[in-house]
Amino acid sequence: MGPDPAVAAVRVAVRRALGELPAGMPVLVACSGGADSLALAAATAFEAPRAGRRAGGVTVDHRLQEGSGHVAQTVVRAMRELGLDPAESVAVTVTGPGGPENAARRARYAALDEAARRAGAAVLLGHTLDDQAETVLLGLARGSGARSLAGMPPRFQRGEICYMRPLLGLERATTRRACRAMGLTPWDDPHNEDPAYTRVRLRREVMPALEKALGPGVAAALARTARLLRDDAEALDALAERARSEVTGDDGALDAAALGELPRAVRTRVLRGAAVEAGSPAGTLAAVHVEELDRLITDWRGQRHVDLPGGVRALRRYGKLLFRRGEIAADGRGR
Amino acid sequence: MGPDPAVAAVRVAVRRALGELPAGMPVLVACSGGADSLALAAATAFEAPRAGRRAGGVTVDHRLQEGSGHVAQTVVRAMRELGLDPAESVAVTVTGPGGPENAARRARYAALDEAARRAGAAVLLGHTLDDQAETVLLGLARGSGARSLAGMPPRFQRGEICYMRPLLGLERATTRRACRAMGLTPWDDPHNEDPAYTRVRLRREVMPALEKALGPGVAAALARTARLLRDDAEALDALAERARSEVTGDDGALDAAALGELPRAVRTRVLRGAAVEAGSPAGTLAAVHVEELDRLITDWRGQRHVDLPGGVRALRRYGKLLFRRGEIAADGRGR
Repeated sequence: MGPDPAVAAVRVAVRRALGELPAGMPVLVACSGGADSLALAAATAFEAPRAGRRAGGVTVDHRLQEGSGHVAQTVVRAMRELGLDPAESVAVTVTGPGGPENAARRARYAALDEAARRAGAAVLLGHTLDDQAETVLLGLARGSGARSLAGMPPRFQRGEICYMRPLLGLERATTRRACRAMGLTPWDDPHNEDPAYTRVRLRREVMPALEKALGPGVAAALARTARLLRDDAEALDALAERARSEVTGDDGALDAAALGELPRAVRTRVLRGAAVEAGSPAGTLAAVHVEELDRLITDWRGQRHVDLPGGVRALRRYGKLLFRRGEIAADGRGR
Repeated sequence: MGPDPAVAAVRVAVRRALGELPAGMPVLVACSGGADSLALAAATAFEAPRAGRRAGGVTVDHRLQEGSGHVAQTVVRAMRELGLDPAESVAVTVTGPGGPENAARRARYAALDEAARRAGAAVLLGHTLDDQAETVLLGLARGSGARSLAGMPPRFQRGEICYMRPLLGLERATTRRACRAMGLTPWDDPHNEDPAYTRVRLRREVMPALEKALGPGVAAALARTARLLRDDAEALDALAERARSEVTGDDGALDAAALGELPRAVRTRVLRGAAVEAGSPAGTLAAVHVEELDRLITDWRGQRHVDLPGGVRALRRYGKLLFRRGEIAADGRGR
C-alpha cells in the first residue's frame, strides 16, 4: 500500500524541485507550522535523504503576537520529529517603513537569507496554488500590467541564496489532507483569519464569489495566467532593455523618432526604465505617469516636459527625450 | 451654465472618438435602450453635427423576449427624438452553435455590419469601463494569458466596418447620471439582472467583493490592466509572427534548435500559431496543449509526438518539428 494520494502529491512536487538543485546542495524548509509548510517539511524530510541531500528547517518568530516564542518552539520540535536537522527558530524584530506586512516580510527574508548562508543551503517555501491565485488578485488592484499579475516565481535568487516554491502547483486543500494523513497537527495562525488583511478578504470573500460566478478551477486558471504573464513580462523586459540601449545616444538622451517606431508595450517599458534610472522611484512611478511620458513621443504637440515622481523631469528637445533630476522648484515651475 | 458634468463627460468621450474617424464619415449608434447606449446616442446626436457628420441609430431586436418588438419601437422613437437620422430597428433570428449569448452576439454584429454598410458609416458601441472590467474577469477564468485578459479594444474592424467604443473609459454610473440629467428614461433589460448569466454574477457578486477587499477603483485598475496587456499581446504576437517565418523551413517544418533560442513567451506563440495553421481549432487548443508541445523543444527526452485537438499530431524528427493532420487513427495510435 502506497502513501495517501495527498502525501504522494506533495512528495512528488518536492522531489521535482530538489531535482533542479545542484547535486548535494542542502535545503532548508521555511516552516511557519501552518498546513502548507508543515506538509512541505514532512515531504522534504522524506525526500531529501533519498536524493542525497541534507535537509534542515527554520521557523521565524516575528514576535508580533503574545506567545509567538512558544509557537516557534512547538514548530521546532515538530520539524525535529520529522527528521529535519538542524531545526531552529530565529527571532526577528519587525520594524521599518511600508506597513506591518511588508516589514514582517523583510525581516523574515533577512533571517532566512542568514540561516541559508550559514548552512550553504537553498530555501524551500510553502506557497501553494491558492497563495498564487490570491497574489494575482492582489496585483489586479494595482492595474500595472503583466508584471503585477505575474504572481510569485517558482524559483528566485536573493543574492547568492536560491529560493524555491515546490508547492506552487498544489492546492492548499492538498497540504491539509497530507497533514491529516500523516497525523500532523498544523498551527493555524490567527492572522490568516483576520479580515484586516487584504489577503484574508481575498481568500474568504473574493475567491468563493469568483468560483461561484465562473465555476470551479478559478485558482488554477489564475495560477496559469500568472505563469503565462511572467513569460510575457520576461520577454518584453529583455526586449526593452535591448531597445533602450539602441535608442540612447552618447549624451544619455533618447531618440524620439526611434522610440516612436517601437511597439507600445516595448516603448513604455523603455520609458519606464529610463525614468527609474533617472531617479523616479519604481514604486511610485505609475502607469499614468508613463502614459503621459509616452505622449511626449506619440502625441507631441509642442509640450516641453512632463514632471515625474521623485523630482524627475522629462524634457523633449530637438527630437530627443532627456531626464533631469532636481530641476523642479517648490513652485513646480522648474528652475 | 454648462451641461451636467456627467453629460459633459460623455460628450467629451464621444467627441474624442469622432475625431479619430475620417472627415465626414457618418456614424451609427448601436442602441439597446439601456443607460449606456442611450447616453451614447444622446451625446452623439449632440456632437456629430458639430463635427460635420451625420449620425443615425440602430437597435437590434433579438426577438428572444416577449414584447421585444415593442421595446425596439420605443428605442427607435427615443433615438428619433434625440435627432438621430435614420433611426431604425432591425429584427434578427438568434440561432447557431456556442450558446445563446454567443449566438445573439453573432446575429447582432451581422445586423450592425449590414446597417453600417448601407450607411457607409462607422458603428459606435456603448460599452463602459465596468463592462471592460467584467470582460477581464471573464478572461481570468480561461487562464490563457494576455490575450484573454486584454478585454475589449476601443476600436476594431469587422471587414470594412469600423467599430468604436467611445465610453470605455467612463463608469456605468456616469451614463446613468447623464441620462437622468437629460431627462431620458433608460430601458433596463431584465437579462442584465438574470443571475443565469456569468456576466451578471460577476457584476453583482464578484465586483462588490473585489471592491470591498481591494478598495475602490478596482474596475478602473482592471480596465488599465486590459489596455496594458493588449499592448503586450500585440507586441508579442507580431514578434511571434516574424519568428515563425524565420524558424520555418521550405518544407514547412520548424527548426527545433532555433525555436529553443526564442524566449518562452514568443516560442509558445509560434507553436500555437503553427498548430492552429495545421488545423487544430484555436478555441479548443488550450495552454496545456501548447505546454506539452513546448516540451518537444525544451524538455526533449526522445518523445516522438504530441497529439493535439482537431486530429493534429506534432512530431519531432531529426531536429525538426512538423505537424500532420488526420494521422491519428481511432485507436489513438496513429496510422
